[in-house]
Amino acid sequence: MTAGVVPLAEGTNPEVVRWRLRLAYDGSRFRGFATQSGQVTVAGALCEALSLVTRVDVALTCAGRTDAGVHALDQVVHFDLPTSVASGLDPAAVMRSCNRQLGPSIVIREAGPVPLSFSARRSATGRRYRYLVVNGPTSDPLLAHLAWHVTEPLDVRTMSAAADAILGEHDFRAFCRRAPGTTADDPIVRRVLDARWSRVDGPKGKALLPVDGNLLTFEIDANAFCHQMVRSLVGTFVDVGRGKKRPSDIIWILRSADRQQASQPAPPGGLTLMAVHYEGGPACSPG
Amino acid sequence: MTAGVVPLAEGTNPEVVRWRLRLAYDGSRFRGFATQSGQVTVAGALCEALSLVTRVDVALTCAGRTDAGVHALDQVVHFDLPTSVASGLDPAAVMRSCNRQLGPSIVIREAGPVPLSFSARRSATGRRYRYLVVNGPTSDPLLAHLAWHVTEPLDVRTMSAAADAILGEHDFRAFCRRAPGTTADDPIVRRVLDARWSRVDGPKGKALLPVDGNLLTFEIDANAFCHQMVRSLVGTFVDVGRGKKRPSDIIWILRSADRQQASQPAPPGGLTLMAVHYEGGPACSPG
Repeated sequence: MTAGVVPLAEGTNPEVVRWRLRLAYDGSRFRGFATQSGQVTVAGALCEALSLVTRVDVALTCAGRTDAGVHALDQVVHFDLPTSVASGLDPAAVMRSCNRQLGPSIVIREAGPVPLSFSARRSATGRRYRYLVVNGPTSDPLLAHLAWHVTEPLDVRTMSAAADAILGEHDFRAFCRRAPGTTADDPIVRRVLDARWSRVDGPKGKALLPVDGNLLTFEIDANAFCHQMVRSLVGTFVDVGRGKKRPSDIIWILRSADRQQASQPAPPGGLTLMAVHYEGGPACSPG
Repeated sequence: MTAGVVPLAEGTNPEVVRWRLRLAYDGSRFRGFATQSGQVTVAGALCEALSLVTRVDVALTCAGRTDAGVHALDQVVHFDLPTSVASGLDPAAVMRSCNRQLGPSIVIREAGPVPLSFSARRSATGRRYRYLVVNGPTSDPLLAHLAWHVTEPLDVRTMSAAADAILGEHDFRAFCRRAPGTTADDPIVRRVLDARWSRVDGPKGKALLPVDGNLLTFEIDANAFCHQMVRSLVGTFVDVGRGKKRPSDIIWILRSADRQQASQPAPPGGLTLMAVHYEGGPACSPG
């Protein structure tokens, strides 16, 4: 360690202030969340707007790195600002200025300082995703970017039975794209707290119901997700709904730990990150 | 009249077959329904797909000419095909081929022959439109193309009272863009059968509810609509909800027959043509 440089305990660095943002975005306009050189990404667009408004470059950490085409209604990110910069900023004004830059595809819903001990990723205790399926003879142009169109009639009862099979703690290797630097032998254990299919209908849902069909939603809550986990699960559940797989196959696929046994991942456009949970409630201030 | 050319009674011309289509489209991708040279329009895209598939050029008549940015979930159109061409066509196959050409922004939901006495426009006995408003502090990127974002809190109770005032037969000149070839003295009488605001919430609506806010829907049924009528009404009702106008002002604006008294039209993206009514039920076969 260089003489004179004293490591600061987390939460006590006087030179930086940590900010948290809550975001919504239409993922169909972006090559995913994470910054990639030469690609239009959510983080890229956000960093550009933030650096225009704050006059400093920031590095973002997010709660859930969404893939290309995947949406978010409540993504959480954090970044650090030099105290000298942060002290001159009004969070509400920063939010308004950034939202003007970002246009309709990304919206900052909330912005402000949090303790340095808060991490959008590491402090998160859970995430909730939703997947939408339009199940009918023709697709719905108004929901084209938000839902997967499946023409064959789906049996929601068997899909629900299949979803029940993933509740609790399991090794989800069979439903995950392997992360770089891991081997096929590394288990990928995740804890699923809720996983349910439902049909949206009736007078309340009618306002946005699709053309000629039913809208099916899959909602899943887990402590964390591995890469393409929700889309692989949905692809497999839809094969159950089509009668190509049985609900009991899910347990067998989990045990196989073999990605070849799961169905193709469902398209990204149907998927939305709905909420990130922290101690004390969804996306609430941890301090 | 040229010797030998006998005018055929409608419905008995053996040389043409009339087809009807039911369509849905995302209006944000088009400069309105009607063909305009050099512009991407719904009719233009549809005629191109139909002529590729049927090998003849067709002229479309629609039930409701939607403006640029306005959507439809159930637009009805008709066109005539030479009998020699029509006899070789399978409607389901034409629909599938056209839908492959048209991509996600336009979908043909139904196609097939109807009696020559049917006119998509003249046979229609009514139309239903819906307008969506996201009412909350921030906009919703996932509904950006489908709803008008209004930040000021809206009072749905007074908006409903205002909507009640337009029920029945009225001269809607104050809420219409004047048609070419008409004068300000020409009354524009329309009969409104239903007009209601509602708030979409609860577990059924939740699946698609917007970020940070309430989704308000306005639904209106009338025998016919004049140009920009729904958008002018919605703009005025939203001013009532903001407290800038009173519900009773609607009656006074109707009586004034003066477009300056109505509010600015609401943006086109919130508006969707939901259904066209014909004798015997919505868009049902008239024959």
